[in-house]
Amino acid sequence: MPIYNAPLRDFQFLMHDVLDMQKIDLPGYSEMDRDFTGAVLEAAGKLASDMLAPLNRVGDEQGCRLENGVVHTPDGFKDAFEAMKEGGWTALDADPEYGGQGIPYLLGIATSEIFTAANMAFAMYQGLTHGAYSAIHTHGTDEQKNTYLPKMVSCDWTGTMNLTEPHCGTDLGLLRTKAEPQDDGSYLITGQKIFISSGDHDMAENVIHLVLAKAPGGGEGTKGISLFIVPKFLVKEDGSLGDRNGVSVGSLEEKMGIHGNATCVMNYDGARGWLLGDLHKGMRAMFTMMNEARLGVAMQGYACADAAYQNAVVYAKDRLQGRAVTGTENPSGAADPLIVHPDIRRNLMDQKSFIEGGRALVLWGAHLIDRSHAGDADAEGLISLLTPVAKGFLSDKGFESAVQAQQVFGGHGYVEEHGMSQFVRDARIAMIYEGANGVQALDLVARKLPQDGGRHMMAFIDRIKAFCQKYGDNAALADDFVAPLKAASKDLQTAAMFFMERGMKNPNDALAGSSDFLHLFGHVTLGYIWARTCLAAQHALENGGDDQEFYRTKIATGKYYMRRQLPMTTTHLARILSGAEPVMALQPDAF
Amino acid sequence: MPIYNAPLRDFQFLMHDVLDMQKIDLPGYSEMDRDFTGAVLEAAGKLASDMLAPLNRVGDEQGCRLENGVVHTPDGFKDAFEAMKEGGWTALDADPEYGGQGIPYLLGIATSEIFTAANMAFAMYQGLTHGAYSAIHTHGTDEQKNTYLPKMVSCDWTGTMNLTEPHCGTDLGLLRTKAEPQDDGSYLITGQKIFISSGDHDMAENVIHLVLAKAPGGGEGTKGISLFIVPKFLVKEDGSLGDRNGVSVGSLEEKMGIHGNATCVMNYDGARGWLLGDLHKGMRAMFTMMNEARLGVAMQGYACADAAYQNAVVYAKDRLQGRAVTGTENPSGAADPLIVHPDIRRNLMDQKSFIEGGRALVLWGAHLIDRSHAGDADAEGLISLLTPVAKGFLSDKGFESAVQAQQVFGGHGYVEEHGMSQFVRDARIAMIYEGANGVQALDLVARKLPQDGGRHMMAFIDRIKAFCQKYGDNAALADDFVAPLKAASKDLQTAAMFFMERGMKNPNDALAGSSDFLHLFGHVTLGYIWARTCLAAQHALENGGDDQEFYRTKIATGKYYMRRQLPMTTTHLARILSGAEPVMALQPDAF
Repeated sequence: MPIYNAPLRDFQFLMHDVLDMQKIDLPGYSEMDRDFTGAVLEAAGKLASDMLAPLNRVGDEQGCRLENGVVHTPDGFKDAFEAMKEGGWTALDADPEYGGQGIPYLLGIATSEIFTAANMAFAMYQGLTHGAYSAIHTHGTDEQKNTYLPKMVSCDWTGTMNLTEPHCGTDLGLLRTKAEPQDDGSYLITGQKIFISSGDHDMAENVIHLVLAKAPGGGEGTKGISLFIVPKFLVKEDGSLGDRNGVSVGSLEEKMGIHGNATCVMNYDGARGWLLGDLHKGMRAMFTMMNEARLGVAMQGYACADAAYQNAVVYAKDRLQGRAVTGTENPSGAADPLIVHPDIRRNLMDQKSFIEGGRALVLWGAHLIDRSHAGDADAEGLISLLTPVAKGFLSDKGFESAVQAQQVFGGHGYVEEHGMSQFVRDARIAMIYEGANGVQALDLVARKLPQDGGRHMMAFIDRIKAFCQKYGDNAALADDFVAPLKAASKDLQTAAMFFMERGMKNPNDALAGSSDFLHLFGHVTLGYIWARTCLAAQHALENGGDDQEFYRTKIATGKYYMRRQLPMTTTHLARILSGAEPVMALQPDAF
Repeated sequence: MPIYNAPLRDFQFLMHDVLDMQKIDLPGYSEMDRDFTGAVLEAAGKLASDMLAPLNRVGDEQGCRLENGVVHTPDGFKDAFEAMKEGGWTALDADPEYGGQGIPYLLGIATSEIFTAANMAFAMYQGLTHGAYSAIHTHGTDEQKNTYLPKMVSCDWTGTMNLTEPHCGTDLGLLRTKAEPQDDGSYLITGQKIFISSGDHDMAENVIHLVLAKAPGGGEGTKGISLFIVPKFLVKEDGSLGDRNGVSVGSLEEKMGIHGNATCVMNYDGARGWLLGDLHKGMRAMFTMMNEARLGVAMQGYACADAAYQNAVVYAKDRLQGRAVTGTENPSGAADPLIVHPDIRRNLMDQKSFIEGGRALVLWGAHLIDRSHAGDADAEGLISLLTPVAKGFLSDKGFESAVQAQQVFGGHGYVEEHGMSQFVRDARIAMIYEGANGVQALDLVARKLPQDGGRHMMAFIDRIKAFCQKYGDNAALADDFVAPLKAASKDLQTAAMFFMERGMKNPNDALAGSSDFLHLFGHVTLGYIWARTCLAAQHALENGGDDQEFYRTKIATGKYYMRRQLPMTTTHLARILSGAEPVMALQPDAF
């Protein structure tokens, strides 16, 4: 059975030593002392290790079942969901006005990582609810907020997002689901939605669907789209549940992974819905939640990888196979443990340096979201730029990392018994949903890069330049961190310039390099994050606190990233500079 | 339902235009004219498309069942296996003395690719039999050959390879299966073997297991290992089947993929076996088949990727989503097909340039094996060097390529319905079995690189140098092929020198970079292969033959590889040159 231990020490280090959160003037931050965050994380970790992780394989093996229109979750999910609710975990970073605890998102996403790593398919029921909560919280009327939010904060009711239809996913302008206005101000929603995560299940009294549909008079394409609240059971004026609405589960998808989550085909047959936000402005309402939702998927990428990594480490220490080339290390055993072998060590270091770097990036991103919620426009611009990078890069690399963890097990990784296959199969979805990674790359190059005249991109590069200038003479950082970061960020700048110069004349020159740009950007961002992280570790070392070993390990892990991962920027740049010609040379018939 | 079409045109081009096989003085080669090879490949393609490909999903969904000790294969497998036998496909490249058709391995592996791409799990039943056939053919006594080979050539009896035990895979010196000599010259074999592909099934009368076990007096470690023939049913003197032997299936493994192949736990309880080859020289007997078996896995890597690619192309042309940034291309449709988008095109070009390059490498490798069987020591040295590269690089990249194909489908790739998940799950195994890719990297750096004083490595580099010298002024090749190949091969040379200089003092400096070296080597090899391939295409273009479009497409695909894939050598070299320090910096406890 796979194990999972929440990385409590790393969270505390990132929150307090790197981000120094308690000293930041943001709502709720001053109360976040080490003891408090430590207690919250430890409790989340206990629930994750004791209850959620053991259900991960169960969820994978049993999957969800649709019987007579009712979706049944795997054995044990219901009890675990109750435990989540009772522990207040669903309400952590929600608005106190609706029963939430008002904790910063920075701490909220840390607990989400813990639950996701332990059991991704399970954590998604609450994750989707949180997304729907945010949409109603931002765009709902007071009546809508009062009707839905308290129950969604407690997860007595869960939420979903209904975008995709059989013929359209990325290109939502094509969607066909119709909303007919009724005299009472409500709408009748008719159409079919697919790939609806947590679409229905037996763990909550009600499911609140947020549905994109076309109401009359909105024009063609995405301009005609509005967002509707469509509850599974209609809610009476007193808040109790009334009739079943005209929405049903058509079928459950058979998927590669996340079997414990019910991915539903949802049929809307004149279901009653209520407009959320402005008419014909549904896309905008959706997009305001995107930064948060996509950062959540970025987190899934490395969270799933972390669970896989932890098990690979256990296996690499336990499994005896071969002898160290530099001399026997386990003379009393029949062989040395796998971890003595340099190629196994490289594999583990790849994973470790990615996961810890990814965590630092996502916590920083969550902090930027906290800032932007408090009205910081620069933070909003920066996180808007970094969101496609974090989502695309961390989910691509998270999958790769899980595959590496599986590889440590050899043939034992390919059989389902050890659970390593599941981590790989689960991690795969993060590259696809919330906008496939190719769409993230397009968003980055075509929208985020030129946004506000390229201001946010320039600010990001200036930020790195300033860092490099400030620490260029720092003995601990100069050679191992500043120099490689400088070189990598120069590659990023060259690529951005190439796009700006060439992209106007031939947009394909930018688009052909978009995925490479996303990855180049991702490496530079992780390089920067690692440099900042190791600066904090260096300070802690110099201050002579406890846990010297933790800080030294942190710095060695960061160095590994700079030496062995950052050189990827050279290759990405070379590909980008080759432009559109090699990519577009063939006619479609030639494929 | 996924489609598959055998790449007949590409095979013919590689065999006749690139390798010019008919003019080569090797057994059977002179008979291989275009018409003959074309007819064979077309027939194989027809069987694959019509019968094997439609069973691929069936095999994945149903898997194999173990009932009362009997393994049942999925519906339709038995009929398809009969069709393989009746068509003579199992006998193609086997020795005519035992009922084979004596066709060169070069053509044999092409037909294997076709069957593998259509249905990998199914093709493995014959593939493993061919491996066992080769072992008996090379090391068996005349009596053993006469007893087993005719039935194995016809696949009336199939074969297996039994190496792995629960506690050892890579480190076979640890194995515990025992062989006790009997007075009649046979042995009684006792022990448990796991991960035995095609271990048992209902498609053949008998299964001939080749089993590694320890006989008394052989000493510790791998030196004490011998190889035994252990048939499921004992064979009487007249060749008919006698009693059931003491070998049984303990259980079937639940795996991530290749569900249609029965991966068995085999229990040997005093089963009767006969020594194959010399006593205590079992490892040597195994290794003589390794080049061929590993080249077969290299083939699986890109074959599975090709099937995935073909379906991604169909989807990219059919699925309407978004508009081309350079102007609408499908004005009568609601949107343009995916294939207009540069990032989709990049994705498909990555796949296409890898798959065609991989095929060219494996066919060249098969040709080298044909040469080495005819006594060519240089060819044997070269293929021995290239084998770990081909196995590791093509299986790693084949999996990546299948993941890319799946990505084209977006959410539709994650659900099982379209079969893209299966290609990914199936392709994953090739990175693990026949020596996990980390072991290939170790074999490359620690054994093959220094083999015969580094002669084969130097010969390979000289071969590329000679090519670059010869075509450095060729207008069609110089800039697009020779220049990047020169740069990449310089990286390879630098890496090899680094290992030679540093590896003696600190072997970890070489081993920490072993996987990067394997990939660097793989890119250079594919770059070289692509340059040769495009030279042949250029000649064909100049000769003004038919099919100009095919040759132009080939050259454009090759250019893509040189421009967009070959730059990876820079990154691999940078990692290698960083040495062991970053990789080995942490103590095991720090993970």
